[in-house]
Parts: sequence; structure tokens; C-alpha cells
Amino acid sequence: MSTTPLSPTDRTTLHRNRTRARTERSALYEILDDGLICHLGVVVDGSPRVIPTGYGRIDDTLYVHGSTGAASLRAAPSQEICVTVTHLDGIVLARSLFHHSVNYRSAVVYGVPRTVTDPDEKLAGLRAVTERLAPGQWKTARRPTPKEMAATSVLALSLEEASVKMRQGGPLDDDEDYALDVWAGVLPVHRTFGEPVPDPRLRPGIPVPPHIADRA
Amino acid sequence: MSTTPLSPTDRTTLHRNRTRARTERSALYEILDDGLICHLGVVVDGSPRVIPTGYGRIDDTLYVHGSTGAASLRAAPSQEICVTVTHLDGIVLARSLFHHSVNYRSAVVYGVPRTVTDPDEKLAGLRAVTERLAPGQWKTARRPTPKEMAATSVLALSLEEASVKMRQGGPLDDDEDYALDVWAGVLPVHRTFGEPVPDPRLRPGIPVPPHIADRA
Repeated sequence: MSTTPLSPTDRTTLHRNRTRARTERSALYEILDDGLICHLGVVVDGSPRVIPTGYGRIDDTLYVHGSTGAASLRAAPSQEICVTVTHLDGIVLARSLFHHSVNYRSAVVYGVPRTVTDPDEKLAGLRAVTERLAPGQWKTARRPTPKEMAATSVLALSLEEASVKMRQGGPLDDDEDYALDVWAGVLPVHRTFGEPVPDPRLRPGIPVPPHIADRA
Repeated sequence: MSTTPLSPTDRTTLHRNRTRARTERSALYEILDDGLICHLGVVVDGSPRVIPTGYGRIDDTLYVHGSTGAASLRAAPSQEICVTVTHLDGIVLARSLFHHSVNYRSAVVYGVPRTVTDPDEKLAGLRAVTERLAPGQWKTARRPTPKEMAATSVLALSLEEASVKMRQGGPLDDDEDYALDVWAGVLPVHRTFGEPVPDPRLRPGIPVPPHIADRA
């Protein structure tokens, strides 16, 4: 895994709010490894298209997958794509509306993806995508058949060019506004998992495995 | 508010998984009115860029705002943008890895935005964005000054061309896989709010207002 800092290309260098930029590669990994879905941006007929989809990471490669019939994936291998992962961590409530903000962590990755054709890498990429959404399932559920593998596209995107932004902490108000009788602070936002809901067709006697029941 | 169905342009007509498409305009409103942030897609120098940002809705117009210095907003008014709002509602755990999926609701809106210049609409758009992230704050916090208004860009995007997709319910496995000894079902994913964290500089004696404390 690379320990070089994140890329300093123009579009990944933040021109505003510099204090919110992070350039350690570890910050990128942490954000990607804490997400469940990404938003994949492609250009179709000159216009942007933004689609939510699953993803996974292995070292310095990000994998996304989809049906071989998906238009967004068909368009992707020949051109640049953008993959964004965002965590909304809190609503920042200031004394002035102008200084309302959000606490968040986001990673934006740019690059020309390649369609994964090597069978071993394709399986590894699919595993990474599956384990991001459903850790522990790769060892539990039925593995893909050759026919299922053929129906699935896996794209690989290098994490070479990426930017990381985050905001943490309370509101920053204008000096004179601290005298106002307005509550200020942060309302945290969390992602939580509920109680597992068994499939109505679940065979009797199969308990919820700990990797699902205890997920936090 | 329009009651016409969503647009039937080619890119908003789902060519796959037709059962997941929704064409009622009310479904679009529900998804937008349940979100906190969107992912805004723009094309910059021919490449896609996907940025998380706040948004709000008034009738059939979506508003996004940002600093007048933000590159993504500067690029936007002259060209098409894409705004996507996604709710991840559950991880669908099937008996086969191939049929793993997610329950979600997503709205994708396309259009050429306009920069809002009318002062009344600009204030209304900002209010819509603020109230989406922080309902109740418009009546509580200090309103924007003319200088703050001038430092803020508001873009308006018609909801004319939009698509809605959702998946709900349990896994759909292949017939022969129902005999497997694999737990199957849905792990729900929720967005929750934590306990409000007061600003360290909060003046003594200001309680957390109900619209923040009781938010669900």
C-alpha cells in the first residue's frame, strides 16, 4: 500500500477552505473503508451522470461493479470517471444562518478506469465490493458461477489522483454574533444498522450469524 | 406543484430492472424531501466531477448553494448538471453472493441550472437549502446580511427531467439456492441523529430548542 501523499494536481488541490483539506493517503483509505456506497460520475453525451453504486478497495485500487448491461459502466472504460464517497457526520448549527455548515468526510477520486479481465483480479475485486457492503458474507454465501461472473463487469480505478476533505468541530460564528441568544452546536448524524429481518422463505433453524447480528 | 409524471427522456427511462423504476412525481418529492445532502455532478474540462453539497426543494425547483468562489458552481450555469440524492435503506443478504443487493431510494435530476439573481427567490432558495439541513433554524438564527447574500451563489434546477429508482424487500435467490444453509434477509440501515453537542462558547442558560433536540 502506498504511503506517498495524495496527488497535487490542480483539481485535487483545494483552492478554498484549505484547512479542510487532508493530504495523507491514510485519510483517503479511512474514508473509503468506512463507506457503503459511492457516487460514480461519468460523462454521457457530454452531460454528467451521477449514479450510486457499491465499491471496494484493495491497496491503491478501487473497484466498482455492475451488470454488463449498465449504460454508466459501458461508457466508463474509455474515459475519465469520478468516484465520490461522502460521510455526513453532523449538522453544524451556528448563531447565524450564514455560518451553518456540516461536519463531513469526503473522498473524490479521478481517473480512467480499466475493465478487469484477469479472472483472479475480477474475483478479488468482486470480493472487495461484497465485503464492503456485507463483510463476512464471502465465506458464507454461495460463490459466483462462471455464468454469473460473465454477467458482471468489474472496473478498477487507481487511487493515484484523489482529494480528501473534511470538516469537524463546532460552528465558527462572527465575533459579534456570540452575544446572540441562539443555541449553537453540532447535531451528530450517525449511520446505524437495525435488527436483521429474515427472508420469509428462510429455512427454519438458521440463526442470524454474528457477522450480521453484531455489525456496528 | 406539478402532478405530471416524471419525464420519459431516454436517459431517465430505465432500461434495466424496470420494476425498480417509479414514475410518480410524488416519489421524487419524497426522496428529495427525506435527504440531507445531494451529489452534484458537473463536467469540468471534459471530465466528470462529483461533489457533495446541500440542497433544498420548492415545488418543482431544486436549489443548491455555495460560495461564489467554488469552481463546481462557477462551471455549472452554462452547462448541464446532474443532481443525485440517495438513501441507503438496507443491505440485502442473499444465499448467493451474486444476488446480494441493497435496498435504496434514489433520485437523479438533469438540467441546465440558472443562477438565481432575483433577491426574493435567492432568499427563498437559501431558506429551502437551510431548512433541509436544519429545519427550524430559519426562524431562530441570525438572517443573512446583504454582504453575506452577495458572497453566496444559489443555483436553481428544474425538476422537469428526473428519474426515480428504488428497491425494497428481501433477497431474490435462484430456486436451487433456497435449500442452502445460508441465512438470508435484510440488514436495515438507518440515519439517526445523536445528542446535540453544545458549542464550547455557548452562552450559559440557552437550552437546546425542541426543533433540534427532538429531531428524528
